Amino acid sequence: MNDRALRDVVVSLGGPANGFPRQDGFDIVVASEVMAIFCLASSLPDLKARLGNIVVGYTRDLRPVRARDLEAHGAMTVLLKDALKPNLVQTLENNPAIIHGGPFANIAHGCNSVIATRSALKLADYVVTEAGFGADLGAEKFIDIKCRKSGLRPSAAVVVATIRALKFHGGVDLKAVGQENLEALERGLANLERHVRNVREHYGLPCVVSINHFTQDTAAEHRLVQERMAALGVPAVVARHWAEGGRGAEELARTVADVVDRGEARMKFVYEDSAPLWEKIETVARRIYGAAGISADSRVRAEIQRLQDNGAGTYPVCIAKTQYSFSTDAALRGAPTGHSLDIREVRLSAGAEFVVVVCGDIMTMPGLPKAPAAERIDLVDGAVVGLF
Amino acid sequence: MNDRALRDVVVSLGGPANGFPRQDGFDIVVASEVMAIFCLASSLPDLKARLGNIVVGYTRDLRPVRARDLEAHGAMTVLLKDALKPNLVQTLENNPAIIHGGPFANIAHGCNSVIATRSALKLADYVVTEAGFGADLGAEKFIDIKCRKSGLRPSAAVVVATIRALKFHGGVDLKAVGQENLEALERGLANLERHVRNVREHYGLPCVVSINHFTQDTAAEHRLVQERMAALGVPAVVARHWAEGGRGAEELARTVADVVDRGEARMKFVYEDSAPLWEKIETVARRIYGAAGISADSRVRAEIQRLQDNGAGTYPVCIAKTQYSFSTDAALRGAPTGHSLDIREVRLSAGAEFVVVVCGDIMTMPGLPKAPAAERIDLVDGAVVGLF
Amino acid sequence: MNDRALRDVVVSLGGPANGFPRQDGFDIVVASEVMAIFCLASSLPDLKARLGNIVVGYTRDLRPVRARDLEAHGAMTVLLKDALKPNLVQTLENNPAIIHGGPFANIAHGCNSVIATRSALKLADYVVTEAGFGADLGAEKFIDIKCRKSGLRPSAAVVVATIRALKFHGGVDLKAVGQENLEALERGLANLERHVRNVREHYGLPCVVSINHFTQDTAAEHRLVQERMAALGVPAVVARHWAEGGRGAEELARTVADVVDRGEARMKFVYEDSAPLWEKIETVARRIYGAAGISADSRVRAEIQRLQDNGAGTYPVCIAKTQYSFSTDAALRGAPTGHSLDIREVRLSAGAEFVVVVCGDIMTMPGLPKAPAAERIDLVDGAVVGLF
Amino acid sequence: MNDRALRDVVVSLGGPANGFPRQDGFDIVVASEVMAIFCLASSLPDLKARLGNIVVGYTRDLRPVRARDLEAHGAMTVLLKDALKPNLVQTLENNPAIIHGGPFANIAHGCNSVIATRSALKLADYVVTEAGFGADLGAEKFIDIKCRKSGLRPSAAVVVATIRALKFHGGVDLKAVGQENLEALERGLANLERHVRNVREHYGLPCVVSINHFTQDTAAEHRLVQERMAALGVPAVVARHWAEGGRGAEELARTVADVVDRGEARMKFVYEDSAPLWEKIETVARRIYGAAGISADSRVRAEIQRLQDNGAGTYPVCIAKTQYSFSTDAALRGAPTGHSLDIREVRLSAGAEFVVVVCGDIMTMPGLPKAPAAERIDLVDGAVVGLF
Repeated sequence: MNDRALRDVVVSLGGPANGFPRQDGFDIVVASEVMAIFCLASSLPDLKARLGNIVVGYTRDLRPVRARDLEAHGAMTVLLKDALKPNLVQTLENNPAIIHGGPFANIAHGCNSVIATRSALKLADYVVTEAGFGADLGAEKFIDIKCRKSGLRPSAAVVVATIRALKFHGGVDLKAVGQENLEALERGLANLERHVRNVREHYGLPCVVSINHFTQDTAAEHRLVQERMAALGVPAVVARHWAEGGRGAEELARTVADVVDRGEARMKFVYEDSAPLWEKIETVARRIYGAAGISADSRVRAEIQRLQDNGAGTYPVCIAKTQYSFSTDAALRGAPTGHSLDIREVRLSAGAEFVVVVCGDIMTMPGLPKAPAAERIDLVDGAVVGLF
Repeated sequence: MNDRALRDVVVSLGGPANGFPRQDGFDIVVASEVMAIFCLASSLPDLKARLGNIVVGYTRDLRPVRARDLEAHGAMTVLLKDALKPNLVQTLENNPAIIHGGPFANIAHGCNSVIATRSALKLADYVVTEAGFGADLGAEKFIDIKCRKSGLRPSAAVVVATIRALKFHGGVDLKAVGQENLEALERGLANLERHVRNVREHYGLPCVVSINHFTQDTAAEHRLVQERMAALGVPAVVARHWAEGGRGAEELARTVADVVDRGEARMKFVYEDSAPLWEKIETVARRIYGAAGISADSRVRAEIQRLQDNGAGTYPVCIAKTQYSFSTDAALRGAPTGHSLDIREVRLSAGAEFVVVVCGDIMTMPGLPKAPAAERIDLVDGAVVGLF
Repeated sequence: MNDRALRDVVVSLGGPANGFPRQDGFDIVVASEVMAIFCLASSLPDLKARLGNIVVGYTRDLRPVRARDLEAHGAMTVLLKDALKPNLVQTLENNPAIIHGGPFANIAHGCNSVIATRSALKLADYVVTEAGFGADLGAEKFIDIKCRKSGLRPSAAVVVATIRALKFHGGVDLKAVGQENLEALERGLANLERHVRNVREHYGLPCVVSINHFTQDTAAEHRLVQERMAALGVPAVVARHWAEGGRGAEELARTVADVVDRGEARMKFVYEDSAPLWEKIETVARRIYGAAGISADSRVRAEIQRLQDNGAGTYPVCIAKTQYSFSTDAALRGAPTGHSLDIREVRLSAGAEFVVVVCGDIMTMPGLPKAPAAERIDLVDGAVVGLF
Repeated sequence: MNDRALRDVVVSLGGPANGFPRQDGFDIVVASEVMAIFCLASSLPDLKARLGNIVVGYTRDLRPVRARDLEAHGAMTVLLKDALKPNLVQTLENNPAIIHGGPFANIAHGCNSVIATRSALKLADYVVTEAGFGADLGAEKFIDIKCRKSGLRPSAAVVVATIRALKFHGGVDLKAVGQENLEALERGLANLERHVRNVREHYGLPCVVSINHFTQDTAAEHRLVQERMAALGVPAVVARHWAEGGRGAEELARTVADVVDRGEARMKFVYEDSAPLWEKIETVARRIYGAAGISADSRVRAEIQRLQDNGAGTYPVCIAKTQYSFSTDAALRGAPTGHSLDIREVRLSAGAEFVVVVCGDIMTMPGLPKAPAAERIDLVDGAVVGLF
């Protein structure tokens, strides 16, 4: 359920039998640390150990209270026991797919479960997995969090682009992105080029660009992207699976398989475990986002230092920022440089073993529609309507 | 989940995006009106109509706001769509049983679903169903709420008794109920006699007493109960199914089948729909509980009048009182008379279509153990432990 | 300030620096135990000792926490140091009057301060003091609380009546109380007669009735009241001070002085200190209110027993009920008998040393007007307007 | 009263009669906008108009709700009517002093009332007034808020310094500031020099430095300060009033009177009314604090723009930052440059007519002692003890 009334609550009112009053809040499932843990766990014992590590609060003298201290982790593991088995589903064309786990791509690491990926690797020759949002966010977390913790090593990366988005990054108004505009596309390609460079130089992966086809795209626009990518040595393939199903992605698949088979991947992390938290954030900001530096007010800096000194110093960082820009300013398109990454807040995910770093003015919970979706859902003559 | 911290809460804090702050509370599932509705619904459309009737609050000028006004009942019905199908399970001896629905026996009517009972009636020659707590509470609600609303008409009633409980009602201390004590048993039989009289005279049903056997029971004690019941023309059978399984209840089953086959049931309600709410409560109190009358402070009387005047006047009443006594005083054993039934509070269940009448000092939510059950639940070598 | 938003609050939110969250509430000054204490205190040290005795809460194992335990009573005494000196004011005709202290007449004892009354007794030959609401409430508390605790002993009582109110008690509609109606007046006199009997028999005080004159009163109505009171040996004087000032009350004053000078007062309490709390309540209910008995649900009875067992057993009781009837039912006029006094709640005033007994459906806080008085208060050309 | 439990509260609980639940909070008097208004008001009508302008909240569509809309400002003015008259007190040496009004020096403008200063100017040849905290905070607000709004124009400024503080700014540890250290003093003088330069260049006022004497000061240290100030053409006088009373400040007084009589003041504001809010903040940060620039996350920038667009654009800014440094980092001593002023929050004071700009990690409410002062306050033998 998705009820914003539960985001900020006071509980345990009504007398001593109901406990000690406290301020609290509900998160939606995908935003909870439990989901992040679930997707990083390698086994049931590992799941239980991580759940036990969750810090649920602090004593008055600031010692952490963990789920383990409440003896809650055993029961939590029992609740998740069956869920930890990957779900095998099939596509409309009867290809197998595993859908398993869904942590938020901003306040968590945004990838499906380690167990799902490992299972798939045992079942298929090639496994494709998704990392949410832009390659600065999704791929960085895939590498620095999921791969680091699981030992997984990808063979190649596919960067998805659209002609429309690239023209938007080139300065075109949202209403005009459907019209051919080679100048704007040329300018916007700076954005794609940085993503490609990040993937190849900073993540150490060979790369294929998939141009997801829209009906308003022109051949000249496709050609321009392919030429600019070719200049970098990167194949760019137009993919039409939205219209043609598997056949529309066949060329893309063959191109990726070729790249994979060449075995050129030399995956590397953006930062080392041993770097202090502040330096980890700064490294991602400079290398991946093109920032000049990072900033934080003294309260936040003190909190980062406290985490550094209390056992979280070796954790990776999970940066939450807008997906609309390399900077924290959603209006700054293209490939900006020289900006500052402002850290607003840090949160410890002691079970998932990373530190969430909230930057700029980003909502960590999704906005909800004015009219609840439930209003449209109904049972009519025994059939469910209104779900989509 | 069973978290007393959620009983009394303030929600929608944190700013206008989270709604209008309000005091609210969570009930456990079995205590919710949704469960009561679920068990009374005759079909999916009936379920949806009843869910839509739930009063979730009142406007400032005291007009009811219903789930229907929030357009929530369609989605609620969708959530319950599959749950409304009865669950068929089997006993250890492979007999079929239907387990379906579990409304609280004090603040709701305490019987399983109408749909389950009707399904069973189509599948078997004899159907046994349970009505929670004493025959003053469980049987009265079974007749006056479940049978009244569904048209179901039972053929006989089984009143379950134990020698231990009857000695307790005869004044024996809890620690001494394991010792033979014919004098106390004789006194305590007043309690059983009233239950039997209620069933036969006020509910109009032929009756069998099942003496649930305990190892400390003596033959003399069994004989005394059987003699006293025989004097009323009521068979009393010792049942040993706790030790012997189905065989231990065979004599009971045959006795009940005989009574049913005689076709002497003339089921009647304790009160008519048309009686005012106050009179309905008074009638149950006098006839079934042996009370001299009922009382309520003026605020409660005004609330009953308001319900009477606003469309709930024809609803049955669902009385919540202690199961330890015919009175509201748990310490008053046997078959007390002359007491007063004090009404503390009334609540409208507009979807279930009854009025809950809370009497005396009864908790409408179960107490919880000091140590949460979750502390014992764990996963050990892949096996769940600590559930029971 | 009078802000109903502060009646029920949750405080200490916002983090550990602000304390432990708790449910709390603000009372208006006159409803606080501090005001009751202030009016019963005999000296500054007595005030401090009583303030220190206030129970502000209970520990989890139900031991009382007193203002003294918080070391708050010294500072509280300092704040009240100057306020404890009585205020001498004068009437429009330049007679001295002392106005000092104002505890609520329902949830507290409703009389001005002991220090004020004692001061006045040293300054004047005759001292008149007021006891709020009907003589069943105000006079009973004046005798059983203020006189009991202070040693004060009144010489006579004045019972104030109006022709209008007596006709209302005789069954006349509120709109018709301005018309002569000797039959209704005759019936309504039962109410006045009981008050007079209470004063004389149960409080042991000689009594004068003051008929507060209204312009619609007729001579025949005044005569009827005077005749009925004369039959009891009680003088009844028409008082016109509302129109004529001191001269209008001269006959009343001379009559009261005569009664006082005769020295016939033999003041007695309605109950003794040593009677259990339950018996004290019952005694007031039967003797003064004409009730058949008292009732309380088991939770309230347990709370009374707890107070009885924990040092409050010797305290007087301060009964809060409607002032419109001898019963708890405001609609029951005249001199009802046979009713039951329903106890809804008890509250300990450990500093004031009495037990508040809330009966029936009474609001213990005054209702407020829809438009706050503050809206009319203003400063116009330097002058304050809108206060009255 | 000073109760941190009231900082963050939820009110209007307990049902519809108590209003609509909301999150709220209590401020201490000196931190309230009412105090700021009180000190800026020129007359009773001006006070009333400003109180009416206070924004107490916003409607759901973000229109401001003012005290005037609640018709509260008339009654508020009545409450403050007598308080608005300045309090004349006397020093231990029987010199007259006016103590009137005390807004916080960080979240308000920190100066006494305009009416007090004007009254004093009519009563004396020279008037000395205080502006709280460092000259970057106190003097800036005195000039840009109090003088701007009242038309007051000071003739000179006294900058107060201590040898100890200057050595601390020169890098000495707090424990060592009592030992002579001319090198550290020399370094620390950069701090005083910037204050003096701010006063003379940016505020346009002639300036006298008062060296507040401490017993550990050495003659060499005094001399060094005086020489460095002389080099700037600024007299620096050692003041010993803490030990010698008025006589100890006589030289300082004569020096200041001389400076005043020369009539060289050409007071100017740091920024003009017409500059946008953002530019006003930036101007103060660069000119007075030596900052390289200012920063704010997009939420704060949007809020500043909203204020700019909604009638507060011409208001002065009231910057709240630490008093320990020219920067927002309390640890950055001396005269730092190149730092960034981070804006954390802005608040509209629509009645006081300024915009509060909260910068860095500053608490806007004072910390409280672990043991409440009330614990020591008591009445002993009729005398108040423990106030100081």
